[in-house]
Amino acid sequence: MEGGYTYTQGFLPVKKMEIDLEKTAVFITDPQNDFLSEKGAAWELVGDEVIADKVVEHQVALRDAAKEVGIPVFYSPHTYTEMDFANWKHLNSAEKLMFDIDIFHEGTWGHEFHPDLVPDDNTVVMNPHKGFSNFHAGDAKMQLRQYGIETLIMAGMSANLCVESHLRDAIENGFEVIVLADATAGAGPHAKNAALINFEFIANEVTTTDDIINRLRQAANS
Amino acid sequence: MEGGYTYTQGFLPVKKMEIDLEKTAVFITDPQNDFLSEKGAAWELVGDEVIADKVVEHQVALRDAAKEVGIPVFYSPHTYTEMDFANWKHLNSAEKLMFDIDIFHEGTWGHEFHPDLVPDDNTVVMNPHKGFSNFHAGDAKMQLRQYGIETLIMAGMSANLCVESHLRDAIENGFEVIVLADATAGAGPHAKNAALINFEFIANEVTTTDDIINRLRQAANS
Amino acid sequence: MEGGYTYTQGFLPVKKMEIDLEKTAVFITDPQNDFLSEKGAAWELVGDEVIADKVVEHQVALRDAAKEVGIPVFYSPHTYTEMDFANWKHLNSAEKLMFDIDIFHEGTWGHEFHPDLVPDDNTVVMNPHKGFSNFHAGDAKMQLRQYGIETLIMAGMSANLCVESHLRDAIENGFEVIVLADATAGAGPHAKNAALINFEFIANEVTTTDDIINRLRQAANS
Amino acid sequence: MEGGYTYTQGFLPVKKMEIDLEKTAVFITDPQNDFLSEKGAAWELVGDEVIADKVVEHQVALRDAAKEVGIPVFYSPHTYTEMDFANWKHLNSAEKLMFDIDIFHEGTWGHEFHPDLVPDDNTVVMNPHKGFSNFHAGDAKMQLRQYGIETLIMAGMSANLCVESHLRDAIENGFEVIVLADATAGAGPHAKNAALINFEFIANEVTTTDDIINRLRQAANS
Repeated sequence: MEGGYTYTQGFLPVKKMEIDLEKTAVFITDPQNDFLSEKGAAWELVGDEVIADKVVEHQVALRDAAKEVGIPVFYSPHTYTEMDFANWKHLNSAEKLMFDIDIFHEGTWGHEFHPDLVPDDNTVVMNPHKGFSNFHAGDAKMQLRQYGIETLIMAGMSANLCVESHLRDAIENGFEVIVLADATAGAGPHAKNAALINFEFIANEVTTTDDIINRLRQAANS
Repeated sequence: MEGGYTYTQGFLPVKKMEIDLEKTAVFITDPQNDFLSEKGAAWELVGDEVIADKVVEHQVALRDAAKEVGIPVFYSPHTYTEMDFANWKHLNSAEKLMFDIDIFHEGTWGHEFHPDLVPDDNTVVMNPHKGFSNFHAGDAKMQLRQYGIETLIMAGMSANLCVESHLRDAIENGFEVIVLADATAGAGPHAKNAALINFEFIANEVTTTDDIINRLRQAANS
Repeated sequence: MEGGYTYTQGFLPVKKMEIDLEKTAVFITDPQNDFLSEKGAAWELVGDEVIADKVVEHQVALRDAAKEVGIPVFYSPHTYTEMDFANWKHLNSAEKLMFDIDIFHEGTWGHEFHPDLVPDDNTVVMNPHKGFSNFHAGDAKMQLRQYGIETLIMAGMSANLCVESHLRDAIENGFEVIVLADATAGAGPHAKNAALINFEFIANEVTTTDDIINRLRQAANS
Repeated sequence: MEGGYTYTQGFLPVKKMEIDLEKTAVFITDPQNDFLSEKGAAWELVGDEVIADKVVEHQVALRDAAKEVGIPVFYSPHTYTEMDFANWKHLNSAEKLMFDIDIFHEGTWGHEFHPDLVPDDNTVVMNPHKGFSNFHAGDAKMQLRQYGIETLIMAGMSANLCVESHLRDAIENGFEVIVLADATAGAGPHAKNAALINFEFIANEVTTTDDIINRLRQAANS
């Protein structure tokens, strides 16, 4: 098994997307310490999976490949402010948990980008999202269209929450999405498996980081 | 095991929502023959689960209980037109499958509401959705607010696609959602399990049809 | 003065858009009897302007030119159901007026398309909108992307309400919009002027029906 | 004439909204130096109107009254980053102008809040918007619902662009909106008049700052 696949829906059509570098971007959700670093607020929940799937290494390789072939990288960070923590009234289960563990607290170390994934001049850092998707609480839709992007190569944390919500909203907004199964992780294998099952239904393609990097380079050389 | 739960995330807080009948509605996705009737276009994929979980019976009981206690029922049907089938260019995996099996084709029997779930004077039939969510392609957001609704009791098909996308979007739009685990089904147990795992993270509460009907009656009598 | 311009903001840059037929569509809001036909529910408010600007004739010419050059026409109709009229609780001023005059009532003659603008095989009839914009209550965003559309040639009724709201939302969703100043009208000259002023700020270009038809033909012949 | 009204549509119903302090918030767009301070990037376009209508004074009075009666103030700032200025490809007319005058440039003095309107502990500073509306590029929808807000008292800059777009989107999202005609201004009287005409159609009520402050105090004392 490569990259975390444990089950494939046999009845779904599978197709490799054509990569058009002019219209393609890398899109990474929540590349922050609270998810990706030891001592991060959610490390106890996601750490084993982050290590097992080499999520940080895959995101770094992906980010570097994007720069190498000349396509932009969009970051969708996750942020809660002091006032959010103090005043929000309608928390769902995951938000209750997130508020309990004080995750993505603006101004803290855990809220900062992972040291290997600090934005550079090829990174568009979008408005931070709350909830699970930048398409509902940020500027993803506008930024991507202003750059002429039509296809997203999606990675990030966590698999079945923010990645999957960004995937669903991107599709509804008319983008095509390739999800990288080994550049994401969830709060345990059940969460990751749920995400992988749904990615297969909803994405245009699910593949691995190595595969997409090879295809980006091929596209750049053709 | 009642109502399809096979796994519970121990780290998530669990809370019973208070039911305020003034602000609560039932919300059912895709109550149409193609999902819920033998000979429906997707019956081969979902039929065993629809029967095993008594999905139709649960939706009917829920619909009747809503009328009994005086709260509205919102239907989010799923529709593709002749022109959609002919001209759409950017299909994801599930849409390719749906287009292959000619599902929810406007004007066909499969597109009609299941005979036990025909709308009545307590049913708000919203604009049909395409893709997976009425919040992106219909009037759900507007209709619910115009009726003063804040809490949704959600059921429908299919579990990990349209129900889950409606759930995610309802949450991002500020609604609270109680999902009924036994009034929904997916394309096989993997799909249903993926949905159940994600419902626990994202919904405000996951419960069964019997439980919610009891609580609706209690609220009406108090 | 041609096509209704009474004032131009001198400080705004003016540019003619390039027409790429592969990515361009005509987009018409509310081409229904209640706005465009004598005895329509809003005729008393908009009729003089509809006649003065030859709105129907311009929309027909535009619709025909689209078919001639092979680009699709999207209709965004306006609909209220029996249940909307009975149950909606949060009406703004224009909605109160619309509900008072029983406009766009599903099933009535006024709700039907104007006889000269009946949809044909080149017309994509989207989900009807309520409020003022299909992007909030319909499938405009999804349909346009599925057809690969990036630029809209916009016309319809009424100028400062539905046309302007569709324009604003189209822009936020990353579309480019050319508005036709003489294929729209409002509830009196104040309403039309307000729209024209705002079109100049918000659209990518404002022009006349004759001008755009000429440019569509040029694009088809080049 | 008080507060900038120059024309009233006689056919529109007029109603005073009931103020329920539990569900009401003040909502101010773009309270930044580039619009409200001499030497701001847009001062040449809007300065005369800002002075004539006492826009800063009215916004300050409104902000203070909100704190006095215990309702929150939401700020929707306007921001463009270095990368937006460098890379955006699809600018409309107003955006071309804004990019030309280098307005709302993150990190500059012009981008800062006006010194009399610096956020305090009663201010929710939302994600900045781009384009014209936070509902498309920020977290307005989510923040307002998390605070239980249903009615907005809206002020800000500029009248026919960001204020009007926020108004239109708030209405489509099911909020009720009272617009303050004298706590906003536009790029000249034509722009302001266009806004006032459209406010009357679209808002639930249009009034003045003095009037709303009186009614807020009455609501607090009853």
